[in-house]
Amino acid sequence: MPLKDSPRPSVTVDVIIFTLRDSDLQVLLIRRKYPPFEAVWAIPGGFVGIDESLEEAALRELEEETGVRDVYLEQLYTFGEVDRDLRGRVITVAYFALVPAAAIDPHAGSDATETGWWSVYDLPPLAFDHAEILAYALKRLRYKLEYTAVGFELLPGVFTLSELQAAYEIILREKLDKRNFRRKILGADIIEETEMYRTGEGRPARLYRFRDDAVAEVKARRLFP
Amino acid sequence: MPLKDSPRPSVTVDVIIFTLRDSDLQVLLIRRKYPPFEAVWAIPGGFVGIDESLEEAALRELEEETGVRDVYLEQLYTFGEVDRDLRGRVITVAYFALVPAAAIDPHAGSDATETGWWSVYDLPPLAFDHAEILAYALKRLRYKLEYTAVGFELLPGVFTLSELQAAYEIILREKLDKRNFRRKILGADIIEETEMYRTGEGRPARLYRFRDDAVAEVKARRLFP
Repeated sequence: MPLKDSPRPSVTVDVIIFTLRDSDLQVLLIRRKYPPFEAVWAIPGGFVGIDESLEEAALRELEEETGVRDVYLEQLYTFGEVDRDLRGRVITVAYFALVPAAAIDPHAGSDATETGWWSVYDLPPLAFDHAEILAYALKRLRYKLEYTAVGFELLPGVFTLSELQAAYEIILREKLDKRNFRRKILGADIIEETEMYRTGEGRPARLYRFRDDAVAEVKARRLFP
Repeated sequence: MPLKDSPRPSVTVDVIIFTLRDSDLQVLLIRRKYPPFEAVWAIPGGFVGIDESLEEAALRELEEETGVRDVYLEQLYTFGEVDRDLRGRVITVAYFALVPAAAIDPHAGSDATETGWWSVYDLPPLAFDHAEILAYALKRLRYKLEYTAVGFELLPGVFTLSELQAAYEIILREKLDKRNFRRKILGADIIEETEMYRTGEGRPARLYRFRDDAVAEVKARRLFP
């Protein structure tokens, strides 16, 4: 039996790239070159080719539109509401990644007139249902931050507990109690002490790093399956 | 600009229903009525209609093939390898649910000649890449079991710590140390004591229940977004 020839939805991928920049949680957006939503900001993405996997499509679109490559993507969620694209039925598979801002240098490629880092707390109007997709990605990022070592992508190799707390506060958008934060993060078994200290004004502060096994778990979960 | 008229993949949904039955972790499968893989066991599922959301399609296919309804599905993962279906390019969005076995009564509907509960530890040969999809679902179930109150669907309203440990051992397929298990599960803030005890032979055993807020978190995560 061949595949049904009933009408098929189109399938796209969208790629959400988060970073910490300027003490802010930012996301990489492109300004669309073509209708619909011409000149409106959007999450980078596009149609899945018939001969490429979803992840291949995500990486290709990311590079075509922003010049960014070599990013480890994790599948986020597939959005398939019937009316989410005015052109017809479009199902989109969303991916996301956390990157150190210094690691990439975005520039507008085809289908985009501009790329830019935008604060997730001060977004421009977005095309399609991209505001909802981004809100969901942020929710998942926050959830993962509390349970996994996902933050290793956003921080340098070693950091003080104060620096880690500052990063968590930016992402969770919440002032954290210092003692509770330390108890919780140390109890979560995702970071460990080093023998190094940050010196400067005041008392030297112990430097920590993410545990190798916790980082390995995050990396393992990115890959299919 | 209309949607591209380049070739489009087909999109299906697959629905993995887990339960605890006979001290075993089991999954609901159907035996396929039509080619390809005629008479081979498979995860229930089928093509997404152009006018239904992914979740509507998943619930419809589940009911059509197994008679099962009113199940809370959670989106698992979207599988889109190029060669996963010999008929052509097919992307499938997998959903999963945990149900108490007594809550549903499966029976073969259209596209299936038979339904059955199968031990995840003793599966028949499966159609397509369904063995891989199931292996991934099991991995995710185990991960969720350690971090969330997802087990509330599989256990009665109140249970002893020994009963809970037995359920975890079946799902994780691992003998757990009693003291470590108790420390970890009580530390995870997902269950709480009741004032009730199970009496019988030996000492009365305290009954526990899943915390309302932990169950609410599991339920919230099932829904989009």
